[in-house]
Amino acid sequence: MSAPEPIILAEKFASFSDHWNPRIVGRYNGNEIRIAKVEGEFSWHAHADTDELFLVVSGDFGIEFRDGLRKLAPGEMIVVPKGTEHRPVANGECKILMLDREGEPNTGMHPSTYTRTALETL
Amino acid sequence: MSAPEPIILAEKFASFSDHWNPRIVGRYNGNEIRIAKVEGEFSWHAHADTDELFLVVSGDFGIEFRDGLRKLAPGEMIVVPKGTEHRPVANGECKILMLDREGEPNTGMHPSTYTRTALETL
Repeated sequence: MSAPEPIILAEKFASFSDHWNPRIVGRYNGNEIRIAKVEGEFSWHAHADTDELFLVVSGDFGIEFRDGLRKLAPGEMIVVPKGTEHRPVANGECKILMLDREGEPNTGMHPSTYTRTALETL
Repeated sequence: MSAPEPIILAEKFASFSDHWNPRIVGRYNGNEIRIAKVEGEFSWHAHADTDELFLVVSGDFGIEFRDGLRKLAPGEMIVVPKGTEHRPVANGECKILMLDREGEPNTGMHPSTYTRTALETL
């Protein structure tokens, strides 16, 4: 197998502008590395069979859980355990990196107007 | 299950100073999220059963492969496919974040003086 190439996140983020539409930028052990620009409130959902990792790249981001909000500054991360209801919230535009099991819908088991399938690979 | 707490990487990095001694800061789908401070050249190795994700937080970092060096600036990442020989190199102190399958030795299947087992969880 040939050696891999670096994933330059700044270039990937610069290549799109829409919100809540994750792009795949890499793969790791059967999981997809996704990035997204987000703004405002997402829909409540949970992922039945996968944890979900969030790393904030820029902006004023947080995740609401049923017991309250966890705020996340750039350079901070959180892992949402599978089965845990949550709702991402972005106060202004934020750039985030996520990990999800390969093929997992962005709204997990709770389809909404935010659901995106067949994600683009950058 | 109760909601998770943020992982504040800056606080985690501030809590240790030794090099090439990864700490576990979280878990995702059976993988460990690890951080390390590194400087100089690591030993050549490969991981038989796990990809390895690197994200550079700070410093002048790179990974040597048998076909050449890939340089990585802060905010850039790379996924080393399982079975691929590589050697991390840090020109001055760097801070890095990694993902490895749970329990994977930091030197994979090639033990060296850099091998660390029973990693501390921060």
